[in-house]
Amino acid sequence: MEKLTRINYDDVAILLIDHQSGLFQTVKDIEVQTLRNNVSALARLAALENIPVIATASEPSGPNGPLMPEIQKLAPHTKYIGRKGEVNAWDNADFVEAVRATGRKKLMIAGVLTSICVAFPAISAVSEGYEVFAVIDASGDMSTWSTHITMNRLQMANVIPISTAAVISEVLKTWDKDFGVVSEYAQILTLVMPNYQALIESHVKAQEVALQNNK
Amino acid sequence: MEKLTRINYDDVAILLIDHQSGLFQTVKDIEVQTLRNNVSALARLAALENIPVIATASEPSGPNGPLMPEIQKLAPHTKYIGRKGEVNAWDNADFVEAVRATGRKKLMIAGVLTSICVAFPAISAVSEGYEVFAVIDASGDMSTWSTHITMNRLQMANVIPISTAAVISEVLKTWDKDFGVVSEYAQILTLVMPNYQALIESHVKAQEVALQNNK
Amino acid sequence: MEKLTRINYDDVAILLIDHQSGLFQTVKDIEVQTLRNNVSALARLAALENIPVIATASEPSGPNGPLMPEIQKLAPHTKYIGRKGEVNAWDNADFVEAVRATGRKKLMIAGVLTSICVAFPAISAVSEGYEVFAVIDASGDMSTWSTHITMNRLQMANVIPISTAAVISEVLKTWDKDFGVVSEYAQILTLVMPNYQALIESHVKAQEVALQNNK
Amino acid sequence: MEKLTRINYDDVAILLIDHQSGLFQTVKDIEVQTLRNNVSALARLAALENIPVIATASEPSGPNGPLMPEIQKLAPHTKYIGRKGEVNAWDNADFVEAVRATGRKKLMIAGVLTSICVAFPAISAVSEGYEVFAVIDASGDMSTWSTHITMNRLQMANVIPISTAAVISEVLKTWDKDFGVVSEYAQILTLVMPNYQALIESHVKAQEVALQNNK
Amino acid sequence: MEKLTRINYDDVAILLIDHQSGLFQTVKDIEVQTLRNNVSALARLAALENIPVIATASEPSGPNGPLMPEIQKLAPHTKYIGRKGEVNAWDNADFVEAVRATGRKKLMIAGVLTSICVAFPAISAVSEGYEVFAVIDASGDMSTWSTHITMNRLQMANVIPISTAAVISEVLKTWDKDFGVVSEYAQILTLVMPNYQALIESHVKAQEVALQNNK
Amino acid sequence: MEKLTRINYDDVAILLIDHQSGLFQTVKDIEVQTLRNNVSALARLAALENIPVIATASEPSGPNGPLMPEIQKLAPHTKYIGRKGEVNAWDNADFVEAVRATGRKKLMIAGVLTSICVAFPAISAVSEGYEVFAVIDASGDMSTWSTHITMNRLQMANVIPISTAAVISEVLKTWDKDFGVVSEYAQILTLVMPNYQALIESHVKAQEVALQNNK
Amino acid sequence: MEKLTRINYDDVAILLIDHQSGLFQTVKDIEVQTLRNNVSALARLAALENIPVIATASEPSGPNGPLMPEIQKLAPHTKYIGRKGEVNAWDNADFVEAVRATGRKKLMIAGVLTSICVAFPAISAVSEGYEVFAVIDASGDMSTWSTHITMNRLQMANVIPISTAAVISEVLKTWDKDFGVVSEYAQILTLVMPNYQALIESHVKAQEVALQNNK
Amino acid sequence: MEKLTRINYDDVAILLIDHQSGLFQTVKDIEVQTLRNNVSALARLAALENIPVIATASEPSGPNGPLMPEIQKLAPHTKYIGRKGEVNAWDNADFVEAVRATGRKKLMIAGVLTSICVAFPAISAVSEGYEVFAVIDASGDMSTWSTHITMNRLQMANVIPISTAAVISEVLKTWDKDFGVVSEYAQILTLVMPNYQALIESHVKAQEVALQNNK
Repeated sequence: MEKLTRINYDDVAILLIDHQSGLFQTVKDIEVQTLRNNVSALARLAALENIPVIATASEPSGPNGPLMPEIQKLAPHTKYIGRKGEVNAWDNADFVEAVRATGRKKLMIAGVLTSICVAFPAISAVSEGYEVFAVIDASGDMSTWSTHITMNRLQMANVIPISTAAVISEVLKTWDKDFGVVSEYAQILTLVMPNYQALIESHVKAQEVALQNNK
Repeated sequence: MEKLTRINYDDVAILLIDHQSGLFQTVKDIEVQTLRNNVSALARLAALENIPVIATASEPSGPNGPLMPEIQKLAPHTKYIGRKGEVNAWDNADFVEAVRATGRKKLMIAGVLTSICVAFPAISAVSEGYEVFAVIDASGDMSTWSTHITMNRLQMANVIPISTAAVISEVLKTWDKDFGVVSEYAQILTLVMPNYQALIESHVKAQEVALQNNK
Repeated sequence: MEKLTRINYDDVAILLIDHQSGLFQTVKDIEVQTLRNNVSALARLAALENIPVIATASEPSGPNGPLMPEIQKLAPHTKYIGRKGEVNAWDNADFVEAVRATGRKKLMIAGVLTSICVAFPAISAVSEGYEVFAVIDASGDMSTWSTHITMNRLQMANVIPISTAAVISEVLKTWDKDFGVVSEYAQILTLVMPNYQALIESHVKAQEVALQNNK
Repeated sequence: MEKLTRINYDDVAILLIDHQSGLFQTVKDIEVQTLRNNVSALARLAALENIPVIATASEPSGPNGPLMPEIQKLAPHTKYIGRKGEVNAWDNADFVEAVRATGRKKLMIAGVLTSICVAFPAISAVSEGYEVFAVIDASGDMSTWSTHITMNRLQMANVIPISTAAVISEVLKTWDKDFGVVSEYAQILTLVMPNYQALIESHVKAQEVALQNNK
Repeated sequence: MEKLTRINYDDVAILLIDHQSGLFQTVKDIEVQTLRNNVSALARLAALENIPVIATASEPSGPNGPLMPEIQKLAPHTKYIGRKGEVNAWDNADFVEAVRATGRKKLMIAGVLTSICVAFPAISAVSEGYEVFAVIDASGDMSTWSTHITMNRLQMANVIPISTAAVISEVLKTWDKDFGVVSEYAQILTLVMPNYQALIESHVKAQEVALQNNK
Repeated sequence: MEKLTRINYDDVAILLIDHQSGLFQTVKDIEVQTLRNNVSALARLAALENIPVIATASEPSGPNGPLMPEIQKLAPHTKYIGRKGEVNAWDNADFVEAVRATGRKKLMIAGVLTSICVAFPAISAVSEGYEVFAVIDASGDMSTWSTHITMNRLQMANVIPISTAAVISEVLKTWDKDFGVVSEYAQILTLVMPNYQALIESHVKAQEVALQNNK
Repeated sequence: MEKLTRINYDDVAILLIDHQSGLFQTVKDIEVQTLRNNVSALARLAALENIPVIATASEPSGPNGPLMPEIQKLAPHTKYIGRKGEVNAWDNADFVEAVRATGRKKLMIAGVLTSICVAFPAISAVSEGYEVFAVIDASGDMSTWSTHITMNRLQMANVIPISTAAVISEVLKTWDKDFGVVSEYAQILTLVMPNYQALIESHVKAQEVALQNNK
Repeated sequence: MEKLTRINYDDVAILLIDHQSGLFQTVKDIEVQTLRNNVSALARLAALENIPVIATASEPSGPNGPLMPEIQKLAPHTKYIGRKGEVNAWDNADFVEAVRATGRKKLMIAGVLTSICVAFPAISAVSEGYEVFAVIDASGDMSTWSTHITMNRLQMANVIPISTAAVISEVLKTWDKDFGVVSEYAQILTLVMPNYQALIESHVKAQEVALQNNK
C-alpha cells in the first residue's frame, strides 16, 4: 500500500519517549547537541501550533537519568506519563489512554534508543490503526548499524521514517503567514540547521549595507 | 507492484525545485560543486532532447537566495514558476498546471532539500497518478541520515530513486547517433563523472601518439 | 503484509550459526570484541529465560576454527548440531529437526557470515512458515556493502532485521521484576552497551556520595 | 511477493556487462583490485560448474577501454556479445537471444556502472519473467550514494541484491565433495576474502607444527 | 627547543579573527554549531577571568558576512578592530598595536579559515617574539586536509596547537574556587562538551533521588 | 634531539589519571570498551612485572564519577592519590612526591581527557627532567581533532606518543621466558587485540585436530 | 629552525609536475574535480600576478596521459619542460635551469603523485638552498596514508606544506586593490571553495532586493 | 637536522619483519590484500635490482603463523633469520650481523605490527648510525590511531616514513632503461596501484584501435 499521507497541525500528536540524560550517553549515531536541538525544535513547533505532546521516561530515578528539561520548558502543555517499568511505552495503559485522548491519528514518535523506545511503541501503534512516523533524527541509537536495522524493521511494519526538518516544514505548509509566526518558524529551523542561522545573519547584514550605501 | 518502467525523452518532464544559493549552504550529503554539476547536466540534457523543464524557487528574495543561474542559461526553455510561500511546490496551482501542460507522465524531480522540497511534491504527484523519480544526487539534504530517511520514505510512497547518470543514460538509450549528439552526451557525462573527462583526454592522446609513431 | 510481530520469551528460539574463531578474522563490518559481546549477551538472555538455543559450526576442524566457547559456557542448555559439510544449516536434517523440536515459531538467527550463514537458513525457514528475525549485530560480514546487500535481500524475503539490544529488551518487556532478574538484565545490557556500564557506576557513586554527605 | 528463491548451478546464468578498464577508473564505491577479484571469482566458479557466462562490452574501442581479460582467461566458455551502441544490453537482440539460449531462468548480473549497466538490463529481464539477482560487489558505481540509490531502485523492481561470496556459497551448497573441487572452491573464496587465505596458511602451518612436535 | 609553556589568565590574550557568518558556510572540518559553541566558550572564559579579547573581521560588509554576535555579547570588553582589506590581521597596524597594548605575551589565536586567518597572523606574531597558540577547534577550515596541512605548517613555525577545552582547563588551573566561579566554569565546559551537560543532569538527579529515598 | 629511548620494566612508572566513569561518557576518539581494555592491560602488565602504578582521580564525588575499578583490582599495588581540585595532577604535591618516590625516570602517562589530564602533567614532567611517554590509546579525548591537536602539542614538548601494545611489547622484550609468564603476556595482549584471541583459539584447535587425526 | 617565511608575488615560482590525465585516475586522496580546480586556480593566480610557472610531464605519450590542458590555457606564459624519463624532475638539467632562470627562491610545488612527483624534487630543491612549499591540495596521491606519510617526510626535510587557498591569499595580501583585480581574486577563490560562489550569489541578490524594496 | 637523503639501489637494504599470516588478522589500518601486494612489490624490486633482503619471523610455529610465502618466491635471494623469541629483531645478534654484512647504510624497514615490529628495530638501527626509512604501507598496525602514534614516534627518532610506491620510484630513478626492465617496473607498480593496470590496458587498446582504423 502506498504511503502518501500528508501532515498538518490538526491531525498530529508528538510522542517523546525516554529522552533522558543517562540514555543520551549511549547514543552513537548522532551528536548529543544535535539530538537535543532537534527535540527542542519539535517542542517549540508543538507549542506554536498547539500540537499535543506526550512525554514519558523509563526509570528516571535510575541510571537512565532525568528527562531533558527543555521539553517541558519549551512546550509547557506537554503531558508527562510516568511508567511502571514497561519497556514499550504502549504497554502502559495510561500512555495509550493519553494518546487516545488527543483524538489525533497521526503520531510522530521520537525517542532514545530508536531501536527500542521508538520501534516498540511505533509497531504497537500501527497495529491499533494509527498512522505512525518515526522521527529518526530526533531519536538516537547505540550504533549506526542499529539505526539502519531499525529503519528497515520499521519500514516492514509500515512505520514511515521522517526527519525533524520535514516534520516542521510539513506542518508549516506555507510561509505566507503573520510575520511573528514566520519568525518563530525561522528560529525553529535554525535549531535544526545551524548553517541556516548564519544564512539569515548574512542576509540581514547584506541588506543593511545595501541600504546604508544607498543613502 | 513491480516498478519496471523505462524512461525515454518523450515521456519525461524534469522538475527542479529550490536549487538556490542560500539553501546550498545547508547541504551536507554531497559536495556543492558536484550538486551544481549534476543539475547542470540535467539542464543540458533537457536542452539537447527538448525535455520540458520546470524550475521554481522558494522565497528567492530572502535568505534562501537566488536560483542557480546555470539552469536557465543551459536550458533556456525552462519554465520558471514563482511561488507564493508554499513549501510544497505541488500546493501552488501554477506549478501543478505547468506540469500538466507538459503532457508528460513521468516526472524527474530534483531539489534542495531532498527531505522537503523533493519529498513533498514527489508524494503529491504520485497521488495524482504520475510516475515519479527522485534524482537523489541532483538534490541535497542537511545530513546523510536525512537522505537515508527520505529515500526510505519515498520508497514507501512508490517514488523511484534514480541517479543523474542513470537519467542521462536512459534518455540516451544508444550511442548509435550523429557525431554531434554523441559529443554533447559525452560532455554531459563528464560533468557528472570528472574521471570520465580524464579518460577521454588520455584516449585521444593515446591514439594521436599511435598514429604519429606509425607515420 | 505488515510485520507487526512482538517477541516474548515463550515464543522464541535462538539459532547461532558458525560463530567460529577462524571466520571471525574475515569479519569487517563490526569489531570482533563487539560481535562476541553481543553473542554472549544472547546466550545469557537465553539462559536467564530458558529460551532454546541451537548452535552449529561449519567444519570446526578446518580453517574456520572452533565455535566461540562463550556460547556453551553462558548457555549450557545450548544444543550443538554438527553438520556434514552443508553450507546452509537448513540443509542439515538434524538441525531442522532440532528447531522443530523446540516448538517455537519465532526464530532469532545470528551467524558469521551474515550474507551466507544467516541469510540462507533465514530464507529457508521463512519458506517453511517460521517468522524469522536476523540479529544483524550479533552477526558479522566481510564488508559493509555485504551487510547492506544482505539486509535488502532479507527484507525482500520477509526476514525482519533486529539488533541484539532490541531482542533483549523485547524479551525483558518490563523492569518490574525481581531484583535478581533486573540485575542480570542490567549486566546483559552492559555487554551490549559499554557506556551503560559507566552510567551505572556513576549513578551508584553519586548516590553513595549524596547519602554520605547527608549523614 | 516474498523472494525465497535458492540458487543451484543448473538454474543459473551469469551476465557480465561492461567490465572495462576505462570504466573501472570511474568506480568509487569499491577498490578496483577487489572488484576485479570478485569478477574473477565468478568466472572461476562458472568454469568449475559449467555455468553459462555471457559477457558484453560497450564501445570497447573507445575511452571505455577493453574488457578485463581475466573473464575469458578464467572462463574460456564465456560467450562474448558485441553491442551496436545500445546502453541497455537488453536492447541488443543478440544479447537477449544468447541469454534465452542458455535455457536458464535465474540471472546473476554484474557490471560497471551498477546504476546503468546492471540496473537497466536487470529491470528489463524481470519484465520478461526472469528471476534476477544483481551481484552488487562484482559491480562498481561512481559514488556510494549511487549504489544506495540503485539498490533501492532494484528492490522496487524485484531485483534481488546479492554478494559475490553468497553466489559462490549457494552454488557450492555443500563442502562434502571431491577434494579437488573443494580445493578449487577454497581458492575461489580466497579471491573474495583475502583474510581467508591467511587463515588457511595459518591452519596448515599449525597442523604441520603439531605433527612435527609429535614425532 | 622544547615548548613547555603553561598558560595562566594573567599572561594570555585571545585573538578572534574573522568569525563571520558568511565564512562559516565554507567551513568543512567542524560542525558550525560546534565551532560557534567553542568560540562562545572562549568569550565567556575571557569575561570571567578578565582576559583581553581582540576581535577583527575581514570585509564584514561583503559576502564574508557580519561577525558572530555572541562574541561581543558574552565578552563585552572585546576590542573590535576594523581592517582596511588586509588578509593577514598582523598587517594592520591598529590590530598589532591593540595586541601590544594588552601587555600579554601568550596569544591564543582562533579564526576562520584556519589556513589563512589563523596561520598568517600566528606566524607573524611568532616572528615578533610572542608565544603563539592556535586554538584549532575554535577555528574552521575548508577541508580536513587543509587543517592537517595547516597544523604541520604551524608546528614548523613553532606555533603550538591547542584545543578549546585545554585552554579553558589551563586557565581554570584548579576547581578549588568559589562556588559561583566553579559553576560558571562548568557551564563553559558544557558548551564545549555537550555530553558533560547530560552528565551533570544525571548526577544531580541521582543525588536527589538518593536523598529522597533516604528520608 | 633524537628520541631513541628503550623501555624496560625497571626504569618505568605508569601514571593513570582520571579514568573515571563520568568522564568516559565524553570520550569520542575511541570506543569505551577498547579504552577500558587497554587500561586494564597496563594494570595487568604492571602487576606482572612490579612496575609502580600511580592512579589519581579528579573530583570522584562529582559528575566525573568514580575511578574505573579494574585498575585497583588488577594492580592492587596501585598507589591512589586524591587531589584537592587541581586540574593538572602535577600541581598536586602528593602526586609529584609519589612519582619521585618510585625512583623511575621514564613515565608512561595515560588518562581522560588526553588533551587535559594527560597533556598537562606530561609537559610538566618533561620540564623536571623525566622522559615522558603518552599512551594515547589508553587515553580518551572529546574529538578526533582534539587527539590530533594534542599529539602535535606533545611532540613539540618532547613527549613521545606510544600505543598500549607497544608499551607491553617493549617491557616483554622476549618471549623466551617461563611458560606462566608467556601465558600471562598472551592474555594481556588479547585484551588489547581481540583478533589475537581468536587467533590463539584457532591455533590450539588446529593442533588438537592434527594430533587427533594422526592417532 | 623556525619556518616563518611570508610569500609575496615577487619572490615565488610555481612548479606543476605531472598533472596528467592518466595519473589522475590513480589519485585517491582528493576528488579529481577538486584537484583540477585547485591547479587551475594556481594557474589563474600566476597569470594575474606574473608569477613564473614551470610545468613538466612524465612520459606524456604513454599511459600517464597528456598534461591537463587548463594549465597552459589559463597561464599561457607557462614554460613547459619535456623530460627524458627522469622520475625526479630535478634530475632533468633543463628543468633545474628553468627554475634557476626565474631568479625566484621560494618554490610552490604541486604534482601527481604527491609522494613521488612532489616529494622528490621538493627535497632536491631544499638541498640546493631553495625555500620549498608543497601545495598538498593541488596535488594528489594514491591513498590517504600515502599523503600522511609524505607530509611527515617533507616536514623532516624542511619542506613546508601549504594549501592552495593559503597560497592565493598570501599572494593577494590585501583586498584594497583595483576592482578588476579584486574580482579576479574572488573568481579564483570560488574555484577553490565552491561554497564561496554561492555566498557571493546570495550576497548580490540580497542587496538587489533591499534596494528594490527601498525604491 | 634536515633529512634530505636520496635512495639508490646500491645503498639500500630491505628488512621485512614478521609478515606472518596470523599477525595479518590483527591488521586494521590497511586491507590485507593491499599489504601483501605492497610487500610483494618490494620483493620483486629487490630481485630486479639485487637489493639485499633480510626477512625474519617471530614465533612462526605459534599463532602468529608462517611467513607469507610470496617474499621468498619473488626474491629467492632473501636471507631468512630465525629469532629466539626476541620481540625487537635488533635484539637478535644474527639479524644485526646479517644487516651489517650487506654493507648498506640505508635501511627500508617494513613489518607487522608497525608500532612494534617496525618501530623497535627502526629506533635501534638509528642509534647505531643507520639511516632508516619505515615503509608504512608495506606494514600493518592494529588501528589507525596506532599508525598515527607510531609515525609521530618514529619522526621524533629521525626515522623517515616512506610509501612503497616512493621506494620503488626512487630506486627506479629514470624510465630511460631497457624495455625489459621498464616492463618489470610497470608490473611492480601495478601491484601497488591497481588503477595503473587498467590505465595500461586502456592505453594499449587505444593505440591498437587507432592503428587498426588507420590501415
